[in-house]
Amino acid sequence: MNKKEYVIRQISKTNKKNYENYVVSGIWHLLNDMNIKFVTQQYISRPNGFALTDMFFPQISFHVEIDEPHHKRNIENDLTRETDIIDATNHRIKRIAITEDLNEINSQIRETISDILHLISNLKKENKFEDWEFNNEFDPNFYKNKGKITVEEGAMFKHIAHACNCFGHNYDGYQKAMAINNLDKKQYLWFPKFYENKDWDNKISHDGLHITSLCKIPNLRANYLDKILNEDIERLTFPRVKGNLGFVFYRFKGVFKIDKELSNLETGVVFKRIKTEAFTG
Amino acid sequence: MNKKEYVIRQISKTNKKNYENYVVSGIWHLLNDMNIKFVTQQYISRPNGFALTDMFFPQISFHVEIDEPHHKRNIENDLTRETDIIDATNHRIKRIAITEDLNEINSQIRETISDILHLISNLKKENKFEDWEFNNEFDPNFYKNKGKITVEEGAMFKHIAHACNCFGHNYDGYQKAMAINNLDKKQYLWFPKFYENKDWDNKISHDGLHITSLCKIPNLRANYLDKILNEDIERLTFPRVKGNLGFVFYRFKGVFKIDKELSNLETGVVFKRIKTEAFTG
Repeated sequence: MNKKEYVIRQISKTNKKNYENYVVSGIWHLLNDMNIKFVTQQYISRPNGFALTDMFFPQISFHVEIDEPHHKRNIENDLTRETDIIDATNHRIKRIAITEDLNEINSQIRETISDILHLISNLKKENKFEDWEFNNEFDPNFYKNKGKITVEEGAMFKHIAHACNCFGHNYDGYQKAMAINNLDKKQYLWFPKFYENKDWDNKISHDGLHITSLCKIPNLRANYLDKILNEDIERLTFPRVKGNLGFVFYRFKGVFKIDKELSNLETGVVFKRIKTEAFTG
Repeated sequence: MNKKEYVIRQISKTNKKNYENYVVSGIWHLLNDMNIKFVTQQYISRPNGFALTDMFFPQISFHVEIDEPHHKRNIENDLTRETDIIDATNHRIKRIAITEDLNEINSQIRETISDILHLISNLKKENKFEDWEFNNEFDPNFYKNKGKITVEEGAMFKHIAHACNCFGHNYDGYQKAMAINNLDKKQYLWFPKFYENKDWDNKISHDGLHITSLCKIPNLRANYLDKILNEDIERLTFPRVKGNLGFVFYRFKGVFKIDKELSNLETGVVFKRIKTEAFTG
């Protein structure tokens, strides 16, 4: 995939909804800047619950939501545990109302453009705006050279091995769900899957702060709980998620540690997020 | 329907084809002028055959065709006899190539915009550009006040009665396929249907120059031919057509008269176009 295919596929996600398609392609064409990335139909979590935004600009933490009259979405139905949900607590959300007059919709599109350009110019003044480098997005060397990864930037990896290689490994392939962090041996790299299978039932809270891991094999459950309760390790956690274009990747969700109070035989093992960044090298 | 719904529906016709959708909405958003009308997926006839263009600007007789690699259309399959096909013999067609680089596609979109603006400005200099008045398009009073209708402008009517009322009638409703022209009694108004039914098989040639009318009831055919051969009337012809949004209307295709040489029992009655305009009042 290249930028062209990416952009076309993102816009094509809106094809079933005419106004969404109209607004999203309008914003893209009028921005006319191949250095600005966008994602359509991004699931987000916010303090007041989760939502789906129509156009997300990750470089500036900015979302566009298109409010169509009489068009209520049932987000829960489409969500799976693998859905890539990002934390949008401090993000800006701009609403565009679909009114009767197309001129009004067009001016809201132009307003949105000026909001976006304003945010970008502010970041540029502080030297904090990074151009959209399509090839960096999944490049482990990019994250390795940066020296750290953060939840905020939304670090992501196509393969488990790629993530491992940012932490002192040199794998061609790696399939296990755990690996040691070679840069800090008291930490582990963890690649959980949040869909339920016959042995495990793992899930992450929508705010991204807690992960619950329940062993479904009754006579192993107590053992597992005991073992984890006694571990004193930090877990750099990269759940397997599915993005809006259908690709699977591993999204950094932070450093987690067991929460001994919340964990029990019934709920399972509960991990809480203790940090939102980790050093690479 | 209003302009907003019209525009959204026209763009939505391109939803199944991502590049078409991309280019069409790009052109629309960058033109940003509610006085410019466009039609997506317009069937046209040209001297070298007929075709389907992706975006048609009737005010300036300008078409955009989007050339996707490996994307061959089978137009014939989608065509019916009622399809609204316009004569594009003297129209300009701009081709946009879908290349690997999105920047290149974007510059072709901008080139197209400047072609369109150039054509409009030329017409404006000659006072020949008419703003897109959505409510005039199907308004019989608009055509009545103009004093004439032309094939070139693509005059069209929602109802047979509306067309009749431009020629001296005052109908609320009228369902028959023929009416006299009250402004010129040797002329008739004719509203043929080009789909085959059990009694009739009528069709128009793709260049719009000939209409063939075959009576399917064997013992009436000779009578019909004789009757028409002896008539010396001109037919202001408004076939029933279906536009790209699925609506039926009556499109003025010119003034026709029997072609005595071409007509015979086997082919049926052949009419040829003798004029492309008619006086209203």
